[in-house]
Order: sequence, then C-alpha cells, then structure tokens
Amino acid sequence: MSVALVGAGPGDPELITVRGLELVRTCDVLMVDRLVADELVAEAPDDALVIRRDDLDQEEVNRLLVELGRTQAVVRLKGGDPFVFGRGGEEALALAEAGIPFDVVPGVSSIAAVPAAALVPITHRGVSDRVTIVSGHADDGAEPNYAALAAAGGTIVLFMAARRLERVTDGLVSAGLDPATPAAVISRGTHPDQATVTAPLGKLAELSHALPLPALVVVGDVVSVGERLRHANDDVTASQVPIAQYFSSTQSSTP
Amino acid sequence: MSVALVGAGPGDPELITVRGLELVRTCDVLMVDRLVADELVAEAPDDALVIRRDDLDQEEVNRLLVELGRTQAVVRLKGGDPFVFGRGGEEALALAEAGIPFDVVPGVSSIAAVPAAALVPITHRGVSDRVTIVSGHADDGAEPNYAALAAAGGTIVLFMAARRLERVTDGLVSAGLDPATPAAVISRGTHPDQATVTAPLGKLAELSHALPLPALVVVGDVVSVGERLRHANDDVTASQVPIAQYFSSTQSSTP
Repeated sequence: MSVALVGAGPGDPELITVRGLELVRTCDVLMVDRLVADELVAEAPDDALVIRRDDLDQEEVNRLLVELGRTQAVVRLKGGDPFVFGRGGEEALALAEAGIPFDVVPGVSSIAAVPAAALVPITHRGVSDRVTIVSGHADDGAEPNYAALAAAGGTIVLFMAARRLERVTDGLVSAGLDPATPAAVISRGTHPDQATVTAPLGKLAELSHALPLPALVVVGDVVSVGERLRHANDDVTASQVPIAQYFSSTQSSTP
Repeated sequence: MSVALVGAGPGDPELITVRGLELVRTCDVLMVDRLVADELVAEAPDDALVIRRDDLDQEEVNRLLVELGRTQAVVRLKGGDPFVFGRGGEEALALAEAGIPFDVVPGVSSIAAVPAAALVPITHRGVSDRVTIVSGHADDGAEPNYAALAAAGGTIVLFMAARRLERVTDGLVSAGLDPATPAAVISRGTHPDQATVTAPLGKLAELSHALPLPALVVVGDVVSVGERLRHANDDVTASQVPIAQYFSSTQSSTP
C-alpha cells in the first residue's frame, strides 16, 4: 500500500484541501499531530486506526509509517504544510529508503495564511516584494542569523519564535533593524480564539507575552497594511462571509 | 453583500481548500484569473456570472469588485494564495475603502507546494531552516537584491524569474553564491504536464530555457534532498496514491 503525507492547513479545519480531506475519508490508518483539528480526525472512516503522534519521537514515527505503509493506506496528517518546518522530508526519506510508495499533498502553510487571518498580506505592491521565513528555534539551537535578516529587507515571518520573543526582537534591533518597524504576533491564527498584538518591533515582546501558542511573528511594513485593512473592515459589517457548514452538510452524503 | 478573496491553489484543482470550493459553489459572481483551473470555474452555480479578468487592468478589477460586491456574493478566485504576489492586498484595500465587507480565504501557495510536487522540501532538518522568497521581477522593475539573497543562506524561492533566468542566476553567482549550488526550475507544478530541470545554479538557465511558464525557481541544498527522494520513489511503484474523483463523485450531492 502507501503513505500520503498530507498538510492539514493552519488550524481552521475548512482550510484543508479537497484532496487531503478525500484521503482522510478513505484511509485505513490516520496518524495526526497534536495541532490537527478534531473535526478532521472525525472525518476518518469509523474503522480506521487513529494514532496520535504526541508521545512518539521522530524515529518511532518513521518506523510506524514504514511498517503500516507496507499493507495499509496510511494518511500522515500534519499541521500546516508537510514540507514547511514539518519534518515531512525526513518521513519521506524513511519511506523512500524502505521502498514504500508515498505521496505528498501540500497544505495551506501558516506562512501566508496566519498573517492573512489578521488581514496582513505578506507581499504588497510598493511595500514588500520579498519574504524571509525563519525558525526562531534553529536546528542546532543556535540563534537565527540576525545580521542577514536585518539586511534582507521586506517581510520577515518567524515560526516558533513567540516563546523567546525578547531575544529575537533584541537580536533584530541589535543587528540594525529599526525598533519602530511595524510588527505583530498572531496567536492561534485561523482558530476561533485567534488573537493579534500589533506593535513597533521594540515593544512587541513586552506587549505580547500573554498570548497563547502556537503564534507566528511578522515583521515589516506590511503589518501597517493589515492595520489599515482591519480598521476599514471593522467600520463595515463583518469579515466573515457566512457559508454552509461544510462538514455537517456533506458528511451524510459520503459512503 | 460581500466579496471573498479566495486562493485557488497552485494549479491542481483538488488543491483548493474545502472552504474555498464551498464559496465557489454558492457564489453569485465568480471573477477568475487566467491560471485558475477550468474544473474550478465549472463548480460555480449554473446561473452565476463568470468574469475572466484577463483583459482587465487592476483598477478595473478593483472597481468591478466594489460595484458587484454591493449587491452580490462575489468570489474573487486567484491562483495560489491571494496574499502572496497576488495583489490581494490591493483588492482588499479597495473594498475596505468603499465599505464593502470582504473576507480572505487563503490558498495553497506555490511557495512550498510546487517544490513539493517535485519532492523538494523547502526546509529540511540539518539542510535548511530558512527560506527567502522573492519575485524575479521587482515592483519597480529593478533587479532583486542579489547581495542580500546570496548572504541569506538556506533556500531561495524565486517567483516570476524563469523568463529572465540567465540574468538572475548570473546575479546570484556574481554576488557570491557558489555556481555548484543545487537548483531547479519546476514548470507548471502540480499540473499533469509538470516538468522539472535540476542542475547546478551556474548551468540552470541554459538547461531549462525550453520549459513552459509558469515556472518556479528553487536554489539551495534542499534540491538535493528532492533528488534523493525522486530516485528512491522511482525505484518503487508510483508517487500518486489513487483517490476517488472528488469533483465528479460529489457534484451530484450538492444542490
């Protein structure tokens, strides 16, 4: 059989892809990360084996995928996109080396979707035509390369930086970034309890430390575009277009 | 009424989000870009007004969205993600300033999905923990900042660079990037006629000039991870997990 590495999207279950949902609905085994929405887990067939990966280390995950993938249709459902800070590459290599067929189904990454949920466009004509994406928590435990980030220009998106935000913002300012640069922390983006703090870079850590994780950090002038959009949108009615409840309305029509 | 700015994903129609498809299926007006798959346009209700934006300039698009959005449920379906080189921010600002309610529904961006379709993970532990995304065609017609790109380290993803690839690769090499750096051009990623050229950066332009557009350029050691994955996957059976034909099987169950 085979393993599909599927991106679940940034949080809101309706942001999974059509193909990803179809694979979840027809799998034998579903292995999910802690951050994947319960609504998506509930879409697996009643007789599917559901494995929470919480307590497994990466080696154990790889071994299980290889073993189960020999005989079953396995969906490995990961938050965001499997190939963006998702260790999907490591799982794919383990499968490839064991000769197990696999497929990668991309998901909506938090890169743009979480800023968008706060109405911040990560690129905007005349404001930013480039984006640098880094982990605030480098592979080897080292600090991000602040000098390169400060020199890059454009928008900076930091994953896994909220927990050590004071060090990260100090690092960026020490490397030459203006402490007045617009910046934001977006906590639990696309979830119903999403919260956003927008502040100058130099003040961001002190104003946002109470926000729950996961949180994404965005630095750059595009944050001001988001502020304009949010103010204008508040003045009108609402930002949410009501749509049919997809999961409840279509569940009964699937076998 | 309202306007939803919806990302259609990177090309394959099954990579639209569940929420995005539901909005297309219930809209009064659908305005689409040239790169959006015909299968998605066909999902709009039979009596919906479909507008191709091909011949309209951005001012006309903004004006139409504002006018139609006053009285109708408009879906503005854009290739990739609306807020990644998609001018979604400009359309959102025009709507906000006119007092028209709007929503942004993110899509699977080409950033990670097109490399993934060639089995290239844009981040990989021990290989790259950062990604720089730039347009090969800057806002003001200027060249990308090659010095900053060469100094950034990690993975570089270039949008709209394939048409002028020789200048871009020369620029990167002149700025100090090793001409032996692994690089790839992925043409029509996620489409059935996807094609990939992988080569050292210094040879990439000459080897890939025959590829059709749109094409994404990826530079960095992660390209070698993709090579390993492709070779291993070729040795086993196939990379595509067969799934039910979502669009044909569920169409009959929608009103």
